[in-house]
Amino acid sequence: MERREFLKKAGIGAAAVAATAISAPAVIAQKTYNWKMVTTWPPKLPVLQDGADRFAKRVEELTGGRIKIQVFAGGELVPPLGVFDAVSAGTVECGTSAAYYWAGKNPACQWFCAVPFGFNGQSMSAWIHGGNGLKLWEETYAPFNIIPRPGGSTGVQMGEWFNKKINTLDDFKGLKMRIPGLGGKVVAGAGGTVVLTAGGEIFTNLERGVIDATEWVGPLHDLRMGFYQAAKYYYYPGWHEPGSYLEILFNKKAYESLPKDLQACIDMACTDTEVWTLSQFEAQNGAALQTLITKHKVELIKFPDEVMNGLKKLSVDVVEAEAAKDPQAKKVHEDFKAFQKVVGTWGSVSEKAYYDNIVEKFPLKA
Amino acid sequence: MERREFLKKAGIGAAAVAATAISAPAVIAQKTYNWKMVTTWPPKLPVLQDGADRFAKRVEELTGGRIKIQVFAGGELVPPLGVFDAVSAGTVECGTSAAYYWAGKNPACQWFCAVPFGFNGQSMSAWIHGGNGLKLWEETYAPFNIIPRPGGSTGVQMGEWFNKKINTLDDFKGLKMRIPGLGGKVVAGAGGTVVLTAGGEIFTNLERGVIDATEWVGPLHDLRMGFYQAAKYYYYPGWHEPGSYLEILFNKKAYESLPKDLQACIDMACTDTEVWTLSQFEAQNGAALQTLITKHKVELIKFPDEVMNGLKKLSVDVVEAEAAKDPQAKKVHEDFKAFQKVVGTWGSVSEKAYYDNIVEKFPLKA
Repeated sequence: MERREFLKKAGIGAAAVAATAISAPAVIAQKTYNWKMVTTWPPKLPVLQDGADRFAKRVEELTGGRIKIQVFAGGELVPPLGVFDAVSAGTVECGTSAAYYWAGKNPACQWFCAVPFGFNGQSMSAWIHGGNGLKLWEETYAPFNIIPRPGGSTGVQMGEWFNKKINTLDDFKGLKMRIPGLGGKVVAGAGGTVVLTAGGEIFTNLERGVIDATEWVGPLHDLRMGFYQAAKYYYYPGWHEPGSYLEILFNKKAYESLPKDLQACIDMACTDTEVWTLSQFEAQNGAALQTLITKHKVELIKFPDEVMNGLKKLSVDVVEAEAAKDPQAKKVHEDFKAFQKVVGTWGSVSEKAYYDNIVEKFPLKA
Repeated sequence: MERREFLKKAGIGAAAVAATAISAPAVIAQKTYNWKMVTTWPPKLPVLQDGADRFAKRVEELTGGRIKIQVFAGGELVPPLGVFDAVSAGTVECGTSAAYYWAGKNPACQWFCAVPFGFNGQSMSAWIHGGNGLKLWEETYAPFNIIPRPGGSTGVQMGEWFNKKINTLDDFKGLKMRIPGLGGKVVAGAGGTVVLTAGGEIFTNLERGVIDATEWVGPLHDLRMGFYQAAKYYYYPGWHEPGSYLEILFNKKAYESLPKDLQACIDMACTDTEVWTLSQFEAQNGAALQTLITKHKVELIKFPDEVMNGLKKLSVDVVEAEAAKDPQAKKVHEDFKAFQKVVGTWGSVSEKAYYDNIVEKFPLKA
């Protein structure tokens, strides 16, 4: 509502309007907004669902209560993977999820979450905020009336949980594995069988031998899932998801109905979530990994170089084939690749030397 | 000003006040704030001074113009290293700089910027946002009436520019080097002579042989400084500053005079600067390094492991001695060390494997 219109409705006469007009910058009509947010995550899921609740609180603080957001966990209002559609249709004003779930909308979506042998969190952030990442993301979601914002990285994920040791690429042959998305296509290329399983059923399937292996996120979440009771070997790194990014989605009409300052508040609350999310994973994964090793006797193993190199070759083919499916995916992929070539590899000088010579080895002793 | 008082001053009669009172939540008196910000950086210094200008703009957007910040580069209003004192005294409401410049105020300050063999940007962020980092930082600055906020990392810095190759720790003996802070104490421990030189004089001193070596930031800034014209060998990694953090400082009284929503806006604009700063360094360092190598024929060399190990041993002693100087420094150091032990080393599993097996080698071909 415009200031003038509001004052009129509030019953202030012409004289009063004229009087306030003199000091106009100090009195403005402030519309309030009550929004709904849906997520893909179970209630109270550490970091992810917590991050959504925290986001809503932050928005309220930032806007002095002008925007209030009610948060619904996955399934409470729409199904966990109904987030994109709900935001697109305007059923809700916003949501949070991960872009690779929307490969069916456009294969390009996957590049904004995780690409096998793609970016870690820091390089994704550089691509999003210092490259064309955000622009391309907005462009990809525009046909769906969605404005996307980055919601933070999980950090480098762990690889898979296995019941046998993986010494060569051949060891993937015949393996029934729960691994979604592009990573799954790579495993299929290596001769594995991809079994799709909802989060809540992974543990049971692993325990009963319906699957031989699974991936999930990282120590913090994997510990909570109890996989250590059903699988012995915990491999790293998460070649399939080296720095998966979360997303916060806004219905275009809802976002654009906000005055500019509130749009900026929304954007900043997303950035705040972004920083907080990665910091939480970084701060908590170490202790969880230590618990898995010392308390639950999990064996932590790095994929042999030969296996990594084999997966990398397969990944290049899978990613290229995926990019070829759609012009937007091709465009995003080409930009991602160009950024990876110079910017991504800067880390092989700076960060690699840091991790090689400055960081001490993780305490692995059982 | 209170709403009621404002309306009275604005000449609105009792009837109008009563009328607006019905819709009170929507009309509030909004005080505006005109602030000054001082920085340590030269005008137009990429990323750092640009980041200050961007911060001010962001605050104005977020607050719908309720806070306006005028930015002064180093020396324009107060000397470059007068930022802390000016903010402390309330001469200006805010400033941006780097905490290791304030070792003289309290040695503890240094931990909030750079510790030799300390954290990179990602681990610093985890300590600040997911550990006790920010709390300890606030505690350290409280006696000076300053509220600190993180302003982003430079990423892993480069090591030093040398005119001769460094093959063993002995090669530091007799070397005249421009390197401030704790890193300088380490170099002195290795037998070097530390020469303190203002930023603007480093190049000339290096060219004339007043110094034999210097450190600065990273490719983006080092290219601009023209060091390649006076030194041939560009060593990495920046063991002395593995992820230097910038800071944004607020005078306590000024910050606390703001309503809660504007305090939140200020905090979020800092977080936004934090993300943007590291993303800019990450996005731009690679291309600058490539230019240094291909166009200016700089030789990029990794410090031999023996040299790194020697510097690491010396660093531990220097940092422990520094921590012993003051109870607050000791407290901060102990927390930093504990965080480094489990959380910092998580990167030796996750990120190290990423840089070892996923990231391609930087294009080094001349």
